[in-house]
Amino acid sequence: MNTNLAVPSEFTVEEKEALYKAIYLRRDVREHFLPTPIPEAVLRRVLDAAHHAGSVGFMQPWTFIVIRSNEIKAQVKELFDQANREAARVFEGERRALYSRLKLEGILESPVNICVTCDPARNGPHVLGRHTVPQTDVYSTCCAIQNLWLAARVEGIGVGWVSILDYTLLRRLLEIPEHVIPVAYLCMGFVDDFLPQPQLEKVGWLPRAPLDDVIFYEAWGKGNAD
Amino acid sequence: MNTNLAVPSEFTVEEKEALYKAIYLRRDVREHFLPTPIPEAVLRRVLDAAHHAGSVGFMQPWTFIVIRSNEIKAQVKELFDQANREAARVFEGERRALYSRLKLEGILESPVNICVTCDPARNGPHVLGRHTVPQTDVYSTCCAIQNLWLAARVEGIGVGWVSILDYTLLRRLLEIPEHVIPVAYLCMGFVDDFLPQPQLEKVGWLPRAPLDDVIFYEAWGKGNAD
Repeated sequence: MNTNLAVPSEFTVEEKEALYKAIYLRRDVREHFLPTPIPEAVLRRVLDAAHHAGSVGFMQPWTFIVIRSNEIKAQVKELFDQANREAARVFEGERRALYSRLKLEGILESPVNICVTCDPARNGPHVLGRHTVPQTDVYSTCCAIQNLWLAARVEGIGVGWVSILDYTLLRRLLEIPEHVIPVAYLCMGFVDDFLPQPQLEKVGWLPRAPLDDVIFYEAWGKGNAD
Repeated sequence: MNTNLAVPSEFTVEEKEALYKAIYLRRDVREHFLPTPIPEAVLRRVLDAAHHAGSVGFMQPWTFIVIRSNEIKAQVKELFDQANREAARVFEGERRALYSRLKLEGILESPVNICVTCDPARNGPHVLGRHTVPQTDVYSTCCAIQNLWLAARVEGIGVGWVSILDYTLLRRLLEIPEHVIPVAYLCMGFVDDFLPQPQLEKVGWLPRAPLDDVIFYEAWGKGNAD
């Protein structure tokens, strides 16, 4: 697929609903991965969707390291186990017990892992629009990740973002240059089904905030009628 | 719309294509905004799509400040003008001339501006999964922005991300608390048409990288056959 689609630029009701469906049914998946390999064509479709995110100054700072090697996955799993032991310590009592029951990664069970990185030096040194907010390179990379996540969802592929890792050690393990930022480590694979709700909402870790709680008007703290 | 959709969790071919269409036709829009107001129901649909992004530890750190006041927009435009004069200086010769011809914001012409913020303290102090990579709060906020961008696209609404602003001054202007991070300032409005290509690609600022240039296998720098 390329950017010059021979389609009208407007969306039908069905097409709109499909986008919202993908957004509402996307999940952070950590279990029930099927061992079925992801066909190369499907993987490329998902990565090309990521590559078509907007980026500050069109710098396209992202790189996707596709990992299928069991040996590398086992080393990443080791990093997770170390980091997770540390992370669990900040929770106490019932919360700690609940934490320890949660499955927070699917590194070994998912057929494909992807490390998404951001290269702040790409197409530099002067990137249009990055003068005032240099972090926009990482922001762009996160937008690409969301595209990947949604594209995977419509393909029936679950994606889980593993943030409980020492990313400095991950950088070394994957031979990523010092100046490049590992932004995300994703576990990907087909799944039989997706949870109807986010796992952390379902187990009562936190409720979803009402939409009105996250909207202000004109300035911070102001409601619509203020 | 809520998360318990009475729809099958799989996607038809048409639904898949609709998602990819939204991804490929999304643009960073800075001009040709129509003055047509965005109906409240449509705006809420787009914001609810943003609110349904995944977030680290389900912390939902985002807030959306909806700005319609011409007075506030004019002050933000002033911040842009200041920052843009500075930003233009790093480019020289032809590149500078091209830069100065580019329209990089649509603050006054777009009926709705939205400042998207991230509150690192929300649902804290200990957020599940944020122990190792504290920036995951901002990463989550960027995923929400991408959802917003895609939802707006299918609604026929153009979105332009203005990064050429002093965000510290923006924080003060919008009365955002010190500890909260203004992540994005978005200009939104219906548009007649969307460009077939990103503006910066079209004017020859930078080409789109071939997909193969942004994929490695197993480790940094390795191709598929290495």
